[in-house]
Amino acid sequence: MSSNDLENLIDLMARLPGLGPRSARRAVLHLVRKRALLLTPLSDAMQQVAVTARECLNCGNIGTSDICDLCADDTRATGEICVVEDVADLWAMERAGVFKGRYHVLGGTLSALDGIGPEELSIPRLVDRVTSEAITEVILALNATVDGQTTAHYIADQLEGQVRLTSLAQGVPIGGELDYLDEGTISAALRARKSI
Amino acid sequence: MSSNDLENLIDLMARLPGLGPRSARRAVLHLVRKRALLLTPLSDAMQQVAVTARECLNCGNIGTSDICDLCADDTRATGEICVVEDVADLWAMERAGVFKGRYHVLGGTLSALDGIGPEELSIPRLVDRVTSEAITEVILALNATVDGQTTAHYIADQLEGQVRLTSLAQGVPIGGELDYLDEGTISAALRARKSI
Repeated sequence: MSSNDLENLIDLMARLPGLGPRSARRAVLHLVRKRALLLTPLSDAMQQVAVTARECLNCGNIGTSDICDLCADDTRATGEICVVEDVADLWAMERAGVFKGRYHVLGGTLSALDGIGPEELSIPRLVDRVTSEAITEVILALNATVDGQTTAHYIADQLEGQVRLTSLAQGVPIGGELDYLDEGTISAALRARKSI
Repeated sequence: MSSNDLENLIDLMARLPGLGPRSARRAVLHLVRKRALLLTPLSDAMQQVAVTARECLNCGNIGTSDICDLCADDTRATGEICVVEDVADLWAMERAGVFKGRYHVLGGTLSALDGIGPEELSIPRLVDRVTSEAITEVILALNATVDGQTTAHYIADQLEGQVRLTSLAQGVPIGGELDYLDEGTISAALRARKSI
């Protein structure tokens, strides 16, 4: 642990999710060795993102303009909104590459304990969008957690009668082994069984 | 995956050891959310390190001056050199906090296959230091791998008769359970058993 600059960088790196003190040290050594190839480009890319990154005013996705690329994309269907908790969930949906409509990022889940109400979650904005964008289907792609499902129920209450409301199917994940699945998933999969 | 700036940053982050594409995305989202607290300071710290970090001309440690803090520290013993493969190993030794002498970082291990000979490893510089710094003991703290031990033997050959040569003890690690240890470690520990 030689110098203050290095220690400072290690401390900051260790605050990233997924990195602890040990892996932060490894990463910093790697960076120092690849100064031209990685350290400088990474520092520049961070500075760039620090300046340009912003939340889409429409859907809450993170991009580099006030209206994100997905909202600005004319080729995407306009009648469907997929509601997700988080930008990471939106990115996961996009990687799956099957949904071609619009998104709405809540920014979390309702939580009385943490004082997170509908206002904090851009739920009023979602209700507005359903009317103003002539939405016909709202897909609630919230996490299958207690908080996620509570939030889904609240949103369903708000929008009832205005649009078709759907949620992601629950069941055995592709490649999943029954032996490793929890009872809740197995019983959900059994209840939703299909003829073959 | 909205914009090029973000994707570029994610790609670069994914090249760090210990981060894959998924954890790089998580880290970047975290950075965008903590722009003032983490993203900007991290970018600045990287730029700082990119400018100031350099290898110590004497021992090969990484620091911010031509002679590192450890080599410049007058309170450290001058008669002993601890030889390590890598700066990360030096840092690990320093965390243990028991060695108070000087270090010598080889920068790798001998490898005929990869064309790494004594010159590439600053072994000649080590031989020089043993004479010029009036070293009495060289501790070979190389990894207990085949390459590490080959390198240790080569260095021992070079320095034979000039100094006392030692290596780290091998045995059961503190907190280690026999059941989880390999046979090599157990037999080394048995051969080096001590009276109690």
